[in-house]
Amino acid sequence: MAKHILNALVENRAGILAKMASLFARRGFNIDSLAVGVTQNPEVSATTIVVDGDAQTVEQVEKQLSKLIDVIKVKTLAPETTVSRELSLIKVSCTAEKRAEIMQIVDIFRAKIIDICDHAVIIEMTGTGQKIDAFEEIMHTFGILEMSRTGMIAMTRSKAE
Amino acid sequence: MAKHILNALVENRAGILAKMASLFARRGFNIDSLAVGVTQNPEVSATTIVVDGDAQTVEQVEKQLSKLIDVIKVKTLAPETTVSRELSLIKVSCTAEKRAEIMQIVDIFRAKIIDICDHAVIIEMTGTGQKIDAFEEIMHTFGILEMSRTGMIAMTRSKAE
Repeated sequence: MAKHILNALVENRAGILAKMASLFARRGFNIDSLAVGVTQNPEVSATTIVVDGDAQTVEQVEKQLSKLIDVIKVKTLAPETTVSRELSLIKVSCTAEKRAEIMQIVDIFRAKIIDICDHAVIIEMTGTGQKIDAFEEIMHTFGILEMSRTGMIAMTRSKAE
Repeated sequence: MAKHILNALVENRAGILAKMASLFARRGFNIDSLAVGVTQNPEVSATTIVVDGDAQTVEQVEKQLSKLIDVIKVKTLAPETTVSRELSLIKVSCTAEKRAEIMQIVDIFRAKIIDICDHAVIIEMTGTGQKIDAFEEIMHTFGILEMSRTGMIAMTRSKAE
């Protein structure tokens, strides 16, 4: 089973997300993440869907999505020509004694501390899913108090088009 | 009309997104963005919902969401004690002559060029929605070829808890 990335451009209308989500649920597609955001055109939203499954499943998802009335365009992105990023906010337990150590790791991962108090920090981290997973694993040793991830967005490299 | 941020922790089960989305559609709630991602607990997903509306509408959304069977906890975040971030990938038309100028703007916004070819760059940019809007506006003068945004994720400041 491999992860596949689909990009769908959809009309920014109420209910389109519900239609997409219920299609996935009905067909039993295993959706890893889903990100919905505006594009340069306010009437169009871009959704990035990560599907776990074989090539046949992904083809089915693409086909079924294309049939939905508010879906403008669906394409499957080839991993080797795609840049993908995720954003994560992680609140980590952090006393004054641990601060230097955590700051070092944050630097190595090119993450950023965006909030601090006497017992915790909030770290902003952007990267591929794997990079965020790796960072999360290290932060577990300090104690993760809260964590939120956006789901992946992705784009075909300029050269590959 | 103001923007309100809700955080919902939900059981990571197939169909929950469909239930949430169809609730919004049925009730006619105007959802600005929705981000779904894993948390430190793989069985739980965190969704961040930005709702455009008055206080009463938001109360309704919170109440209706809480009733859904796979929703563990819903809370409305107070803007003044919340840090929020969005991630955006923007592919901008960029010839060699324009490159220095674009790099300058990217630096000012603390964004990052993550891909380049002879006619375009892909820029990764993290910030509040307003910051991304401002950056997007400037990039329009160069020509935006493609753009994808994640939707907002948010967290209460450590001190405010």
